[in-house]
Amino acid sequence: MTEAPSPRTQVKRYNWLAKYDAETIYGILDAMPMCSVGYVHEGKPVVTPTMQWRDGNRIFWHGSSASRMLRAVDTQEVCVSVSIMDGLVLARSAYNYNVNHRSVMVFGTARKITDDAEKRHQLEHFVNKVVPGQWDRLRPVSEKELKATTLMSLELTEASAKVRTGHTEDDEEDYAFPVWCGLVPVTFGIGAPIADPRNLPGVEMPEDVLRFKLG
Amino acid sequence: MTEAPSPRTQVKRYNWLAKYDAETIYGILDAMPMCSVGYVHEGKPVVTPTMQWRDGNRIFWHGSSASRMLRAVDTQEVCVSVSIMDGLVLARSAYNYNVNHRSVMVFGTARKITDDAEKRHQLEHFVNKVVPGQWDRLRPVSEKELKATTLMSLELTEASAKVRTGHTEDDEEDYAFPVWCGLVPVTFGIGAPIADPRNLPGVEMPEDVLRFKLG
Repeated sequence: MTEAPSPRTQVKRYNWLAKYDAETIYGILDAMPMCSVGYVHEGKPVVTPTMQWRDGNRIFWHGSSASRMLRAVDTQEVCVSVSIMDGLVLARSAYNYNVNHRSVMVFGTARKITDDAEKRHQLEHFVNKVVPGQWDRLRPVSEKELKATTLMSLELTEASAKVRTGHTEDDEEDYAFPVWCGLVPVTFGIGAPIADPRNLPGVEMPEDVLRFKLG
Repeated sequence: MTEAPSPRTQVKRYNWLAKYDAETIYGILDAMPMCSVGYVHEGKPVVTPTMQWRDGNRIFWHGSSASRMLRAVDTQEVCVSVSIMDGLVLARSAYNYNVNHRSVMVFGTARKITDDAEKRHQLEHFVNKVVPGQWDRLRPVSEKELKATTLMSLELTEASAKVRTGHTEDDEEDYAFPVWCGLVPVTFGIGAPIADPRNLPGVEMPEDVLRFKLG
């Protein structure tokens, strides 16, 4: 375990599960594009689910330039959270029930990317993370679309991870209690791709679509 | 579609995907225990992942009485978000890429449940939601554990859902563009339960463990 980069990123509850190293944090962010962006709007908390992707030591998310969330967060403090549920851990007491999980929490100031070349580059990066090479196969992005898209970024300087794995951890005296305990693994399944009914005859699915995975 | 219960719950982006009826909102909350609790701490946003469960028109979450989050949210405004990713929707343009999903956003004031009988009842409800009847098989909860557990509740009076299903929605002129499009379904998989290595000889797994599902 490395040190927390700031007081607020220091994991307090179950602090023995805390990780602050880039490898762990990057691994979780790369495994799960879904995230929750928390921000303060008119003094009150709002959490918006969206998709994030990582490039180096920053994460990005995007949306319509008219989005309430994207307009509210530029240059503002946000907290972005990514969580992957890996399993349920049934214990001998309700108190020791647990969830195997990997999660990341990032604090910082969200910044809008205004440079068109950087916007294009990041959108390409996002599209190609899902299916490598797909960006060049798409109908090219227009100036109007680029303008209508707001791209936000957040440095991963104040980030922490929490990782819980393994079996039940019961109170020592409870191991004599005769109840079945165990771990129920949770995974993400990727189903067979369903071709769009309006695909043109002869268009072929890129092999990489089958390689997409989550978690 | 019913009406939004308040201005801030009114879905603005992709508002044709909005649902405000209890059946849809309850269905999503019941399908996914993982949630993100957003709150304001010292003027800044914090998003904490935790497990929620629903009973009637309220959701609940719990944790250690020493938890920073639980101490910060009692009688405070929170925003609780639950999201289920159902699939990736590949389009002919990057602009029309989409994600099939079901999400719920709840705004309101979190309230601590202080009545011991109600705390017990809700913890029992949560344990039995995962494996029906399991509460009575566990080593009974102690007074000390009950005291060490904080239980929060949130009324579902200001809640909205967003549901996106189906195929790619491209700009009409893009359907002539020869690129493969389709839907990549995402599901949750539940693996075979792994018995705790310290289970006593003869304890049997309740059949209901195999019926657990997510999403």
